[in-house]
Amino acid sequence: MEASTELVPGGGVTSPRGFLAGATSAGIKNNGEDCLDLGILFSEVPCTAAAVFTTNRVKAAPVVLSQQRLRQGKAVALVVNSGNANACTGEQGLADAVEMTELAARHIGVSAEIVLVASTGIIGRPLPIENIRAVLPGVVLTADGGHDLARAIITTDTMPKEVAVRVEEGNFIIGGMAKGSGMIHPDMATLLCFLTTDAGVNVDFLRKALREAVDISFHMVSIDRDTSTNDTVLIMANGLSGSGPVAPGSRQAEVFQRALNQACIYLAREIARDGEGATRLIEVKVSGAASVADARLAARTIAGSSLVKAAVHGSDPNWGRVVMAAGYSGAELAADKLELDIGGICLVKNGCPLAFDREEVVRVLDSHEVSISLDLNIGSAGATAWGCDLSEEYVTINSVYTT
Amino acid sequence: MEASTELVPGGGVTSPRGFLAGATSAGIKNNGEDCLDLGILFSEVPCTAAAVFTTNRVKAAPVVLSQQRLRQGKAVALVVNSGNANACTGEQGLADAVEMTELAARHIGVSAEIVLVASTGIIGRPLPIENIRAVLPGVVLTADGGHDLARAIITTDTMPKEVAVRVEEGNFIIGGMAKGSGMIHPDMATLLCFLTTDAGVNVDFLRKALREAVDISFHMVSIDRDTSTNDTVLIMANGLSGSGPVAPGSRQAEVFQRALNQACIYLAREIARDGEGATRLIEVKVSGAASVADARLAARTIAGSSLVKAAVHGSDPNWGRVVMAAGYSGAELAADKLELDIGGICLVKNGCPLAFDREEVVRVLDSHEVSISLDLNIGSAGATAWGCDLSEEYVTINSVYTT
Repeated sequence: MEASTELVPGGGVTSPRGFLAGATSAGIKNNGEDCLDLGILFSEVPCTAAAVFTTNRVKAAPVVLSQQRLRQGKAVALVVNSGNANACTGEQGLADAVEMTELAARHIGVSAEIVLVASTGIIGRPLPIENIRAVLPGVVLTADGGHDLARAIITTDTMPKEVAVRVEEGNFIIGGMAKGSGMIHPDMATLLCFLTTDAGVNVDFLRKALREAVDISFHMVSIDRDTSTNDTVLIMANGLSGSGPVAPGSRQAEVFQRALNQACIYLAREIARDGEGATRLIEVKVSGAASVADARLAARTIAGSSLVKAAVHGSDPNWGRVVMAAGYSGAELAADKLELDIGGICLVKNGCPLAFDREEVVRVLDSHEVSISLDLNIGSAGATAWGCDLSEEYVTINSVYTT
Repeated sequence: MEASTELVPGGGVTSPRGFLAGATSAGIKNNGEDCLDLGILFSEVPCTAAAVFTTNRVKAAPVVLSQQRLRQGKAVALVVNSGNANACTGEQGLADAVEMTELAARHIGVSAEIVLVASTGIIGRPLPIENIRAVLPGVVLTADGGHDLARAIITTDTMPKEVAVRVEEGNFIIGGMAKGSGMIHPDMATLLCFLTTDAGVNVDFLRKALREAVDISFHMVSIDRDTSTNDTVLIMANGLSGSGPVAPGSRQAEVFQRALNQACIYLAREIARDGEGATRLIEVKVSGAASVADARLAARTIAGSSLVKAAVHGSDPNWGRVVMAAGYSGAELAADKLELDIGGICLVKNGCPLAFDREEVVRVLDSHEVSISLDLNIGSAGATAWGCDLSEEYVTINSVYTT
């Protein structure tokens, strides 16, 4: 029996019981006075917590600090800023990250040891810690402050990304928010994403469940094949629903995993849809692969190919690029077994081109969501990846980012 | 003692003795009547020959055929077309590739078994073999036909790419031509490149020498991290200089290798400079790496990063992206040991940002060649890679490629 879940309209990180949030403007983003760029997420009771961090060998100071603090599997709050990544900032950067958690801890009245920190923005500039010192104590935490916090973490995103999934069985909610627009590539936890739940969850299971959800959601998104120094996906579980603790192998574990996957895939798709300069969401489904690893590789390579992305942008039915990308992905394949569908129109069968109505393919490419399905026809494994089109606007945004 | 070499002004594939070439318009490129898109390269005497082909698992018909014929290490001619890649074209494609070699063989009066074939252009469309049948017998082969052939193989390239290196010691020349503008990525022999020499070269050594030269030239170029189905780098050595045969381990082998490297690096740089939509050549030097493999990985990742390329395009001194790219390249590094120079201006030392004159960095980025040097400071290995900036024009070209 499938557990029943529903999206909570207007939901986010403060939808689960006991989570408060708030944000303010510290003048870090320099987009004007009332631009939110600093905030706090807080649980009224301590949480079990788990996270997936960037695999970039150059890790930002907040990543180094949060990674270290999370070893104990506990957290009560998170402080986060946008506009400055606090990366490549040496020892001062680490001291600044520590101070951010201390300022937040003092403001909330908790120990800094269970406060985490995240930053996103330009790499290699000193964090203006004095701005943060000045305004952090004024942050007001409320039970619907999640929306402000979601706005405070975005950079080149055009809109905040929030979700909440209510699970009837167990009577709990998983809330989430994310930012991510450029420097997005799979297998390296590629963005900021903060998840909350009022389910009680055993920390070992929480770690495992988060890893699994990230693998099929954020790890399957590619915007530009660049991997940030700051990526963090964090989940905090406070147990205030009274259910749980969810432990591995239980019926509840399955229910929790499914809801967590749903929340993460929702946010992952929103990130792909809102990629820098994007006008279209591209969903790539690979089936018939020899292994799941191969299916993932092929799907992500196609979704990440600049040439595929540019063709989709121009509604150009240049399907050869999809086959080309699968061919160099490293996935095992036989050229003469490939079957390709774009928007439900079959273009290649047994590796040979079929005649197609060009206008019809242009029409399916010219829509907000473009679906590409490639059947390798050599096995039974599948995977789905998400990306976006590559537009002139992407280049424009990224050629003047620090100016 | 270094052997003396010099570039031959206006040189190309027909500069070495005994090589003839010619080209014609077969109406495949559809850019107008007098657009060259089909040609032949021919040696008056049979050559030892070696090639490096794409590693894409979807290989174009001409790649499959040429790879098979080259097992014997001999060739006398090459027939090549642009405008159609003859890839994903099934059995008909293979039959068409065979027929191209037969038509060329009959025209020249040689056996088709030692005629090779290459194609470049749109993937997945039947080759218009009837056009080729009609005009191939009319191709006139001359001793300065290399220039026409170099024009006949280009697609979105804005200019033909030719080189000839004369080597005093041994009295031989290495000539070359290349095309490559999009779908260019390292480690997969990423373009069409045809090299000729009148040196006599033992086939085993020729294979080894070509592999070595390609490794430090074409394999170090990235335009867009996509790998074509048609990539071919071919060398033909006819021995008409009277020198040789060059064999492994000899003094002549060293001289030959150095000249071949020079020719390949020259063409590789020209390909990077003329990347689709490019306005700048980017040269990335990585030093102080733990191994050559690491240095290559870091250099190519930086040269290939969309965000680095976009920043260079906008002359934006957003150096954090260079460090970010090195960090996710997979190369071993320590963030606190990095030293970064752009255009000779040191921006990062011991992993920490230095104050810099923004206008000065903008100025060095705003030039035809931008040099980025990253010292990892943990070992003694180094490597150089080439790329180009990412412009709005790249997107425009690639969003309407088949239209």
